[in-house]
Amino acid sequence: MRLDELAERLGGRAVEGDAATRVRGVAALDEGGPDQLGFLRSARNAGALAASRIGALIAPPGVPVGGRPVIRSASPNLDIARAARMLAPELRPTPGVHPRAVVDPSAEVHPEASVGACAVVGPRSRIGARTVLHANVTIYAEVEVGADCEIHAGAVLREGTRLGERVILQPGVVLGGDGFGYEFDEQGRFEKVPQLGVVVLEDDVEVGANTTVDRARFGETRIGRGVKLDNLVQIAHNVKIGEGSAVVAQSGIAGSTVIGKRVFFMAQSGAANGLAVGDGSFVGVRGGVIQDLPAGSRVWGMPAVAERSWHRAMIALYKLPELARRVRRLERRVGGAPDEDEER
Amino acid sequence: MRLDELAERLGGRAVEGDAATRVRGVAALDEGGPDQLGFLRSARNAGALAASRIGALIAPPGVPVGGRPVIRSASPNLDIARAARMLAPELRPTPGVHPRAVVDPSAEVHPEASVGACAVVGPRSRIGARTVLHANVTIYAEVEVGADCEIHAGAVLREGTRLGERVILQPGVVLGGDGFGYEFDEQGRFEKVPQLGVVVLEDDVEVGANTTVDRARFGETRIGRGVKLDNLVQIAHNVKIGEGSAVVAQSGIAGSTVIGKRVFFMAQSGAANGLAVGDGSFVGVRGGVIQDLPAGSRVWGMPAVAERSWHRAMIALYKLPELARRVRRLERRVGGAPDEDEER
Amino acid sequence: MRLDELAERLGGRAVEGDAATRVRGVAALDEGGPDQLGFLRSARNAGALAASRIGALIAPPGVPVGGRPVIRSASPNLDIARAARMLAPELRPTPGVHPRAVVDPSAEVHPEASVGACAVVGPRSRIGARTVLHANVTIYAEVEVGADCEIHAGAVLREGTRLGERVILQPGVVLGGDGFGYEFDEQGRFEKVPQLGVVVLEDDVEVGANTTVDRARFGETRIGRGVKLDNLVQIAHNVKIGEGSAVVAQSGIAGSTVIGKRVFFMAQSGAANGLAVGDGSFVGVRGGVIQDLPAGSRVWGMPAVAERSWHRAMIALYKLPELARRVRRLERRVGGAPDEDEER
Repeated sequence: MRLDELAERLGGRAVEGDAATRVRGVAALDEGGPDQLGFLRSARNAGALAASRIGALIAPPGVPVGGRPVIRSASPNLDIARAARMLAPELRPTPGVHPRAVVDPSAEVHPEASVGACAVVGPRSRIGARTVLHANVTIYAEVEVGADCEIHAGAVLREGTRLGERVILQPGVVLGGDGFGYEFDEQGRFEKVPQLGVVVLEDDVEVGANTTVDRARFGETRIGRGVKLDNLVQIAHNVKIGEGSAVVAQSGIAGSTVIGKRVFFMAQSGAANGLAVGDGSFVGVRGGVIQDLPAGSRVWGMPAVAERSWHRAMIALYKLPELARRVRRLERRVGGAPDEDEER
Repeated sequence: MRLDELAERLGGRAVEGDAATRVRGVAALDEGGPDQLGFLRSARNAGALAASRIGALIAPPGVPVGGRPVIRSASPNLDIARAARMLAPELRPTPGVHPRAVVDPSAEVHPEASVGACAVVGPRSRIGARTVLHANVTIYAEVEVGADCEIHAGAVLREGTRLGERVILQPGVVLGGDGFGYEFDEQGRFEKVPQLGVVVLEDDVEVGANTTVDRARFGETRIGRGVKLDNLVQIAHNVKIGEGSAVVAQSGIAGSTVIGKRVFFMAQSGAANGLAVGDGSFVGVRGGVIQDLPAGSRVWGMPAVAERSWHRAMIALYKLPELARRVRRLERRVGGAPDEDEER
Repeated sequence: MRLDELAERLGGRAVEGDAATRVRGVAALDEGGPDQLGFLRSARNAGALAASRIGALIAPPGVPVGGRPVIRSASPNLDIARAARMLAPELRPTPGVHPRAVVDPSAEVHPEASVGACAVVGPRSRIGARTVLHANVTIYAEVEVGADCEIHAGAVLREGTRLGERVILQPGVVLGGDGFGYEFDEQGRFEKVPQLGVVVLEDDVEVGANTTVDRARFGETRIGRGVKLDNLVQIAHNVKIGEGSAVVAQSGIAGSTVIGKRVFFMAQSGAANGLAVGDGSFVGVRGGVIQDLPAGSRVWGMPAVAERSWHRAMIALYKLPELARRVRRLERRVGGAPDEDEER
């Protein structure tokens, strides 16, 4: 694609240098060649430019690019992502059901949808227009998948799961596994509590590889519009996650917890069951939330506390052996230090 | 089903109000309608009743239910679970092997078992009566699956795995992957130690979505009767877990550790390798056990310590910056505080 | 196999006792029978020998074995692993493509490779000699798998993934899922950043069950020669891991972090994004690395600090309530302790 054409499709950006330069794809500065497009976030990244063979750039206005053809953009991060999508070869498979897929006669697969080899679609399920089910996907009974979704290989959607439009599931995702619910019976043994609810993913949700979202006990486990779940995340039964939130890899949200909008759970974090986490909250890496959080909270640590408290506590923690020495010294000076027995 | 019939099947419970009321299913108070059955744990939950459209209830004796028909039960949690099972439509697929399943001629599948589309059963494996293998399940060679099991889509049982009766595997479970065992060879490189043992799951075990249980190096990794493993749990080679224990989501048990009966590992917790954890122990959320625990232990933290020690340490930790200030003040008063160099 | 034949194949080890003893397999001392081979690491393990029914042993020179036939070895751990491999029945399936596998006409499967039932191989992918794809494996387009690999059931290799030789993937591994990359659009909503790179696994890599390795944004996520990843590990986009490193179960490495050679990440540990971890470093269980580590570092804790600092801090932490009591006592003696209001 010509650089000026690309600039036009990005919303009418300005081009400097040879506007007829052709680019075939997007690459990192240290890997790209003369027919590829790179980008600079800011003048700070310009150092990598000298050694780069990249053919053209997207860069903020005014940042020097060493004479290379450049599309000027106030949001180069966003524009390079969009350019990448425009330049990438379309890998979407041809519509239709693979002869080795198994679609129940009562299921409805849109004629523009694509169902891969050994994918299985259960009774009364519906697959929307232009949606792709890759090979070896399993769709149980009465599942609804909206239009323009992509369900990668090995994903499993148990009965009653409902997906909005443009949902992406990476390989190995499990939606609708039974929640972890048991009662003790008269002999003190676990008795399974039937998990009768479903999982609902609203429009534009993306779920990472091998992540699991459990069906509700009753009602719904619901992942709001535009929510992004990373790999190996666990979402328990009856959790609700609000619009635009993100849960980074290996985090877990326990049963019935309600998470607001635009909340971030960073990697390997978690929240206990039955909590409410307010809109716009941020839980740092490895944070463990064990009480309700008001909107706009920023917490770290296990148990999670306010970010500043945690930072100061961690600094003090690693100085703690030295603090203990100082207390011992004070005791020696003041006199009457307790002996070892008393200390216990 | 009529309320009096249900009360009878729950063990002869008393009914108050119209015993001929018909219910078709179980629901939460805030979601149910006039043909559904809800429950109250205690009088404390009765507040939700006023706004509810629910048609009938299970509730403890004496708790007011606003005139609705009610089954009186001393264990409403347990009875609602049982009622749910009685009222839920039976989803068990019809017996038989799907024409698109692949069963080795030397395998034995009970005529009352059900094998789904694209499920694969290897040589000399045996599948018990009324057991369901959902679509895309893979059973390797010489696997034994008992009666009345349910193996969900995408689960993989490697060679030699043995399951008792009434075992449930949620989607994506892997049983019998190789344990993580290497020796250094003469050049200091990893050399794989063959993992020749198997995985055994006793009766009534349930395993959550995408959980992994590794085969033993020699002998068995064994999960005892009635044990419940949640999603994304890791059980390493040669671990033994005693009857009635539970491991909550994203926890991990390292190699050869032996866990007693009725032990709880809460979410994101773990135990190091080669340990013994006594019967009835409880490991709190994110607890990391690195030494043997006597029976009845209650521990939290990493490294895990007694619950009370951990609670007090956490309270003190977040007050630590203030404690440091108090020590500095004391040093100023007593005199002779060490200078910065000495402190290091 | 006769003991003397085995000793010869292990590199000409000495045999004591009846060299004509036949062993059929390898077992643990407490489980093995008269036709099996066990081993002793050192004289310390000799106690288990009295009660053992094992027929023969591998043991270090000079360690008493109670008169049983024995192969003497300075590295019994390594030799028992090799003996196990020599004695184990070869389970490799017969070469060829199962009639119920689905191989794209443009894919190249080596005639000595084996493709299981319901495995799917996409366009232009290549599968090397003697490589085994088990049932229900999914290989997308343009994937390269070298010779002598074993890909277990349910594994998914997305487009462009490249594997060297002798790579082992346990069941449920996902290679090449999209990295977790988003930009905020003009309305403050997540916009997906296309993930255009690939995953490369060099020779002799092994990956544990349900582990996920994400494709790069551009370029490669690369796992170096001989690296071992355990179960449920998360490797994010653009990570590089150097030769001979190991990542134990449920650990996670965030985006673009570069890990050196022979590094160990123990269980449930992690590293933040964009870091450099030097050769030979060791990260303890649950360690959370949030800054660059020089070569040879040994760290624990979250945030991770030097091993000795962490050990001392943990000991001090659990004595902290008592330290606080001592400070209170000092304040009482010295006088002028701040009141509660002042403390905050």
